[in-house]
Amino acid sequence: MSTGFEVVARDGAARAGRLATAHGTVETPCFMPVGTAATVKAMTPEGVAATGARLILGNTYHLMLRPGAERIAALGGLHRFMNWPHAILTDSGGFQVMSLAALRRIGEDGVEFRSHLDGSRHLLTPERSIEVQRLLGADITMAFDECTPFPAERAAVEASMELTLRWAERSRAAFVERPGHGIFGIVQGGVHPELRERSARKTVALGFDGHAIGGLAIGEGQATTFAMVEATVPHLPADRPRYLMGVGKPADLVGAVRRGIDLFDCVLPTRSGRTGQAFTRAGAVNLRNARHAEDRAPLDPQCRCAACAGFSRAYLHHLVKAGEILAAMLLTTHNLTYYADLMTAMREAIVAGSLAEFEAP
Amino acid sequence: MSTGFEVVARDGAARAGRLATAHGTVETPCFMPVGTAATVKAMTPEGVAATGARLILGNTYHLMLRPGAERIAALGGLHRFMNWPHAILTDSGGFQVMSLAALRRIGEDGVEFRSHLDGSRHLLTPERSIEVQRLLGADITMAFDECTPFPAERAAVEASMELTLRWAERSRAAFVERPGHGIFGIVQGGVHPELRERSARKTVALGFDGHAIGGLAIGEGQATTFAMVEATVPHLPADRPRYLMGVGKPADLVGAVRRGIDLFDCVLPTRSGRTGQAFTRAGAVNLRNARHAEDRAPLDPQCRCAACAGFSRAYLHHLVKAGEILAAMLLTTHNLTYYADLMTAMREAIVAGSLAEFEAP
Repeated sequence: MSTGFEVVARDGAARAGRLATAHGTVETPCFMPVGTAATVKAMTPEGVAATGARLILGNTYHLMLRPGAERIAALGGLHRFMNWPHAILTDSGGFQVMSLAALRRIGEDGVEFRSHLDGSRHLLTPERSIEVQRLLGADITMAFDECTPFPAERAAVEASMELTLRWAERSRAAFVERPGHGIFGIVQGGVHPELRERSARKTVALGFDGHAIGGLAIGEGQATTFAMVEATVPHLPADRPRYLMGVGKPADLVGAVRRGIDLFDCVLPTRSGRTGQAFTRAGAVNLRNARHAEDRAPLDPQCRCAACAGFSRAYLHHLVKAGEILAAMLLTTHNLTYYADLMTAMREAIVAGSLAEFEAP
Repeated sequence: MSTGFEVVARDGAARAGRLATAHGTVETPCFMPVGTAATVKAMTPEGVAATGARLILGNTYHLMLRPGAERIAALGGLHRFMNWPHAILTDSGGFQVMSLAALRRIGEDGVEFRSHLDGSRHLLTPERSIEVQRLLGADITMAFDECTPFPAERAAVEASMELTLRWAERSRAAFVERPGHGIFGIVQGGVHPELRERSARKTVALGFDGHAIGGLAIGEGQATTFAMVEATVPHLPADRPRYLMGVGKPADLVGAVRRGIDLFDCVLPTRSGRTGQAFTRAGAVNLRNARHAEDRAPLDPQCRCAACAGFSRAYLHHLVKAGEILAAMLLTTHNLTYYADLMTAMREAIVAGSLAEFEAP
């Protein structure tokens, strides 16, 4: 048995589900904190789990370069290395090799590149990406894809999407089945509904455990993102989880869950936490702003997190202004708690059949 | 009643004691983590307390400039501001105004300077220093002193020491007595035993609740530090706590406790935690070193801290190399735990009468 997925409630196109992995069951809709370099930045694994997260994302590109996939495998795998007992999904490296690596050259076989860290040469192919993810011990492996740039000519988008399909077939073949471990295919096709549909149908035909929608949230705008989700979801099987990659802001998550998405990842809550930005039930807050300097109120009085329980906006403002590490620690804790509670609230609304009236808390 | 101090055991010149403050009782010998800008860097207050610390140091110079003493007072005091329920000792600002401020000018009245943050002009006098510390809500206030530079001519050292004595008298007079709050005088006198003795006798005569030895650990070397401690301690009353400022390395702490010191502060464990340096029962460890890259062992197998319980040296090495915030969080946790456990072990050795055989764990 690979990963298992059970839909426990529906509300319109939205679903509440349970995703079973080798490292526990994950309730969906679910937001995955990003743990790029084997750490969710500024958080202990215990702190990440306290926010409610039970599934995090690891980055194949970063980990294969430092400390190296073989080294992590020799040290017992990524879960043990970073002391995270819950589930891990790893990306394929395809997105980051294009955005971070130097001198990259895409061919039919894969991507040749130089490391942004030390200039060393590497070749990332579908087979190597799947092998790296197996060495890391990912509960959920992602097929190796090309994230088509935006904007791009339709012919280029189509060629890129077809390359991703050929890589998907090789990725599926390279994946070693293990109990509680699954592999997801990635739908591409830019902002063209007919390409999205073709990509979805052909990807689904390859027999993946779940399906991601990639190549979005890269500048096309929320309306187009949602339109592409709507063009794709009807062609994905209802009994497998759906993952919208790299999304997003709270309102993006609500709109995508309404359209049938189960899983998300984004650096926004963690990166924002390191730049003084917080998400609250009263909207986004910039703690660098001097209006917080004497504010005794917590960041979000309805929030259960340690930052809101113990500290005033005045103190958080002081920490941000002083460039203190504790600012990143507390604001990341808060933002991940906010995101986790948003997902829980949506799940409860789906179960209650009230998602139509749901507003981001 | 000001702060109370009770010696519960003696072993040679060393003492085990209890220091009672408005925010709880502190067992001595005690090492105070440094919380410069209303945060022990890279630690939550809960994490600091988990290391065993019950008394931390706050910096008057930093806090008076940002966010400002009056603002902290308006927000309920430093304990509430930083969510630290245990005791706080604040320094007088004298040391940092000389090491950090721009365009400083020392006169009989105090020190005029410009802020290193924004160039704003300030005057720090004994009266203002004591007022700032009262506004912060310090359990233990330090008298305003001049930390005599090293090396310096004997005449300059003597003149500086005499200025500190005059400032000590003004500091004592400016201190507002409150239950559980005390003020400590500071002995200066450079590396001259006769000046140390004169400074000690005259400082003691002013009637402080405890006595600090200042102006050491600034380049004179451990042997001279210890010689100055030996020249000073016999002239300090046995029923008041003794605090050796800015010290130090583990071996410095052991040597100073043996010579009758009860309290210490130093940035070493916290600053080292942010540069990949750790203190262990097997000596100092530089986690940046490549020899740790594949080491599955914990940093210190005998340590009770979260970093040693959950993570390998290989993982800590990876975090340090990648510049991850979690490296600072885990290594600071470890170093402060090591320091706290070192003090506890010395206390137990004093109670057992075995401090002579004690070696830093």
